[in-house]
Amino acid sequence: MPSIQFFPANITITCGPGTDLLDAARKAGVAIDAPCGGNGTCGKCRVRVRSGTVKSISVGGMPFDAPEGTVVLACRSRLGDNDAAVEIPKQHTDTGGKFAGSCEQADQAVTIGPGHVSPLVETRATRVARPEKEDGLSDWDRLCNALGDAAPEDASLEALQVLARTVRGSDGNVTVTMDDRKRMIAIASGGSGHTQYGLAIDIGTTTIAVMLVSLADGEIIGVKTDYNEQISCGLDIISRINYARREHGGDDLRNHVLNAINRCIRQLTTDHGVSPDDILCVSLAGNTTMTHLLLGLPPEHIRLSPYTPTLHRVPPMNAGETGLDINRNALVRFAPAVGSYVGGDITSGLLGTEMVSGDEQIQLFIDIGTNGELVLGNSDFLMTCACSAGPAFEGGGVSCGMRAADGAVEAVKVDPATGLCDCTTIGAVKPAGICGSGMISLLAELVRTGWLDAGGKLRRNTDCSAIRVDGRKAYYILASGAQSASDSAVELSEIDIENIMRAKAAIFSAIALLTRHIGIDIEDLARVCIAGGFGRFLDITDAITLGLLPDIPEDRFRYIGNASLTGAYLTLMSQTKRELQQREARRMTYIDLSNDPGYMDQYSAALFLPHTDAGLFPSVKKPQ
Amino acid sequence: MPSIQFFPANITITCGPGTDLLDAARKAGVAIDAPCGGNGTCGKCRVRVRSGTVKSISVGGMPFDAPEGTVVLACRSRLGDNDAAVEIPKQHTDTGGKFAGSCEQADQAVTIGPGHVSPLVETRATRVARPEKEDGLSDWDRLCNALGDAAPEDASLEALQVLARTVRGSDGNVTVTMDDRKRMIAIASGGSGHTQYGLAIDIGTTTIAVMLVSLADGEIIGVKTDYNEQISCGLDIISRINYARREHGGDDLRNHVLNAINRCIRQLTTDHGVSPDDILCVSLAGNTTMTHLLLGLPPEHIRLSPYTPTLHRVPPMNAGETGLDINRNALVRFAPAVGSYVGGDITSGLLGTEMVSGDEQIQLFIDIGTNGELVLGNSDFLMTCACSAGPAFEGGGVSCGMRAADGAVEAVKVDPATGLCDCTTIGAVKPAGICGSGMISLLAELVRTGWLDAGGKLRRNTDCSAIRVDGRKAYYILASGAQSASDSAVELSEIDIENIMRAKAAIFSAIALLTRHIGIDIEDLARVCIAGGFGRFLDITDAITLGLLPDIPEDRFRYIGNASLTGAYLTLMSQTKRELQQREARRMTYIDLSNDPGYMDQYSAALFLPHTDAGLFPSVKKPQ
Repeated sequence: MPSIQFFPANITITCGPGTDLLDAARKAGVAIDAPCGGNGTCGKCRVRVRSGTVKSISVGGMPFDAPEGTVVLACRSRLGDNDAAVEIPKQHTDTGGKFAGSCEQADQAVTIGPGHVSPLVETRATRVARPEKEDGLSDWDRLCNALGDAAPEDASLEALQVLARTVRGSDGNVTVTMDDRKRMIAIASGGSGHTQYGLAIDIGTTTIAVMLVSLADGEIIGVKTDYNEQISCGLDIISRINYARREHGGDDLRNHVLNAINRCIRQLTTDHGVSPDDILCVSLAGNTTMTHLLLGLPPEHIRLSPYTPTLHRVPPMNAGETGLDINRNALVRFAPAVGSYVGGDITSGLLGTEMVSGDEQIQLFIDIGTNGELVLGNSDFLMTCACSAGPAFEGGGVSCGMRAADGAVEAVKVDPATGLCDCTTIGAVKPAGICGSGMISLLAELVRTGWLDAGGKLRRNTDCSAIRVDGRKAYYILASGAQSASDSAVELSEIDIENIMRAKAAIFSAIALLTRHIGIDIEDLARVCIAGGFGRFLDITDAITLGLLPDIPEDRFRYIGNASLTGAYLTLMSQTKRELQQREARRMTYIDLSNDPGYMDQYSAALFLPHTDAGLFPSVKKPQ
Repeated sequence: MPSIQFFPANITITCGPGTDLLDAARKAGVAIDAPCGGNGTCGKCRVRVRSGTVKSISVGGMPFDAPEGTVVLACRSRLGDNDAAVEIPKQHTDTGGKFAGSCEQADQAVTIGPGHVSPLVETRATRVARPEKEDGLSDWDRLCNALGDAAPEDASLEALQVLARTVRGSDGNVTVTMDDRKRMIAIASGGSGHTQYGLAIDIGTTTIAVMLVSLADGEIIGVKTDYNEQISCGLDIISRINYARREHGGDDLRNHVLNAINRCIRQLTTDHGVSPDDILCVSLAGNTTMTHLLLGLPPEHIRLSPYTPTLHRVPPMNAGETGLDINRNALVRFAPAVGSYVGGDITSGLLGTEMVSGDEQIQLFIDIGTNGELVLGNSDFLMTCACSAGPAFEGGGVSCGMRAADGAVEAVKVDPATGLCDCTTIGAVKPAGICGSGMISLLAELVRTGWLDAGGKLRRNTDCSAIRVDGRKAYYILASGAQSASDSAVELSEIDIENIMRAKAAIFSAIALLTRHIGIDIEDLARVCIAGGFGRFLDITDAITLGLLPDIPEDRFRYIGNASLTGAYLTLMSQTKRELQQREARRMTYIDLSNDPGYMDQYSAALFLPHTDAGLFPSVKKPQ
């Protein structure tokens, strides 16, 4: 069988002739972005043939042998009968599972103090009496006697298997861990000195984050974030759902996300010298599709009308069935979802806001990612909706778009006179592409300096070297081939700009519609909480300039980081927060925007910079 | 590496030089009886060297090379550097996992009729509404709505994984199976036509029995019995407990019993065309040690003072963790134990007796096996104890003893004049050994005809060719080498007779002690229920003649078959019986005979035929 070698990772695997290069890369564990899920439409999975030939498809669908030096789409190319090697361009290579710079930390602002913890599982130290002749008591009976009213009513087999040994060691001192159904999930020798741990996990479409927490006092021991490996099966939710329909597609997706989570767990336990067996509970937050994929539930009905998931409230499971590499009897709790597109990540995210703490002022919560989820409300009501922003803000659907990793342009300064720009990249390296916040920064600058009009068209008939006109399309060049990390220029076409405008219009029109639904004006919003990775690098003024965020005073905006992870932490450690989350999820009213007759009007009106109704953005100056 | 070949099975395996032949046989899957667990004490694991030499140990502990033709103990012999072959004598070879003749059926007298079933798991047929736009209901929500008050509160992951597909098939008609905690363990497409099954399982020290039952109407679909494969690790409970202390010993024992159970399940599902996935609950009865070994719980404390098991009441488990090859979410219920030596087999066995149905007459329940377990009581009280009868009745500890399989002498007629006997064997073949009921029959005949005295000594100074005197020991010959299935004679020595007398004394003294404890005379027993395989072939008159059973009218005895299996069936199918069993287990008072000062006196007095106190056996005539 022929072999295929992937550079720069330099990994070689043997595959049957005819194997799709994208599948071969997946099999080899080499990350290639394929936002469209390998359908040949996004053009992101380009590879350059380095040696040998591969069988590719030309425009028009004709097969051809692509020789050394040819750039082809991995998803549309197959291995021939002989060995070949391909190179993955730099902007597509994984940065070693690490996020660039400041992405690495998760928000740790909200913690629960030692005196106030009530973790998902209860840990009790007690002393078990020695066995006595003729008392007729089994080890279990004596353990239950020692615990009195707090005695367990059920037990895991693994805990029972070590019961005899444990109650006979350490002079009968034991630490028992029980879940909320009084099931003993673990027993350890020794008294209260034995530390036990829990995990808060956020499963995002793009990113997963795992937090290791000490159950005794709520201390955050460490946090690891990583890409959701499902990215190789499609960047957005719809591509993933499509991928799941393939043979073994659901299994692939499940394994990918579990790999990423378990790798984070392994890193955390190794770094902090914690035994995975001492991790006894997990609070997990993810959107409805991510939760379905993690559990191997078929996601296709989420996508198809009437958009019905298998379930909104996943019952508690144990880690063994869930597939997490910790104590197999650990209790796994899932944050409740409200609808197919408003999931547990949102009900978790809300927990860190004042909307659920009795405040009467009307506030807005926005989680901006591939999907935008919004919640509007106060102590009296909560209204929620979701909109499909598309992958533009995550770097998808934009020719030079990339995730917020090293080499991504994240901020731009445009000279009003020359139209040329100064780029700041993550990691201060040569630009390799542009990430979501970079796009917002660039477009806002171009609008402010008059190089981009309200309809999203670049100024033409100019000798500005940053603007290239090709037929009916114009391009804005951020870096030429010579200046960029790869050999090709980093540029944004008017089609890319249109995609970004669609994304921002989707978000803003959802905001406008929600406020209209309850009859308030946008300027009445007392606070806007922005969650999600994209929000972290977002410049509020730029976002208002483009009409992505409402034009209200900047001090009403608050960036709350990975709110979903924070909520997972809170529900891991606090019974009050768990009950609050269940209550709040029940009082949220879900509005299906796709069924709202006013949505398309709002959306069309928002397809300008900042908006067709300039009165909504009084602070945004018209370009000179 | 040298190879070792086992005959008559003709199985060859390769092992490292120095491998113990008994371990090699286990590894090869060849059954060799080793009642003592391979300690070199029972002498049952004899093999004859057929070619090559093996390294054995002579009397005095000196190693020697055993050449072709030598008979050695497998557990005390090792493979040398070269290939060898050994033959396992016929009486020790497995009869293909089958019991001889009438042993094959289990008692099916007690069944529960279609109108009265309330199985361990509840099955409901319902129709789930179609998903509708904007109703905000997940598949799970609609299922719960359809079931109303009977809605599940929890679900297995596997059931959730097929939920979307199932509620969309068959016009929404589904069959849902829930356990007693309202956990949905399975969902199937289609209405009430879908048949679901349960298993009743009895795990005996020697035998396991598995019954396949239709949950809808309680019909018994089939029963399979097989040897408990743990026999290769020791015939009695103490040997098994000792074996469990070896490295991986507990795992070996667990695998052995699971193999035997899963083989029975496989045969039943194949024979009756049932999918293992449609088996959704199990009611399991076994003695305390068997239950511990099945679950991988350490049994050693059962054996060591103060005889404390890990637990008496095993919480419900699922089949996946238990290791049964059926639907992994099937609910497995364990019959409660009362003490280390009165287990779930007894609390199950009682369910088929009048002792638990409100009868005021005092009755006795005896399960005679390697251990004897007794329960005495009526509607007011239940008193229980266990005694170690030893393996004699199962064929162990008796030189020509064997299990009740083909070739076992099961009944004997002795000519008073000549002292010679006529033997009836199971399967009507040449005698290979003698089983428990055969021993009782022979001794009773010898006592009646005066060839055996009350002290267990054979008549000497006679020219009876059936009696052979060798030094201080005498032997009774049932079949000469020429008449027997193997080349060696089938005979009983006075030491064997002593072992049988010890076994019967253990049982009778326990009966005497229990009756004395509550202050009644033995003749006041209104009924004696005999359970267990040994009881099936037992002649009551013979047993009274020997002083094994009390001397009361024969019509007060009742053989109730595999009562433990019957009880497992009843608790599988009836909520009333499950509650009854829990109540009865709680009201049983366990008496530890080893702590009772009167027990040794009773035991010594019972070491005669029938008893030192002849007044206890008025109907037994003195020999002429």
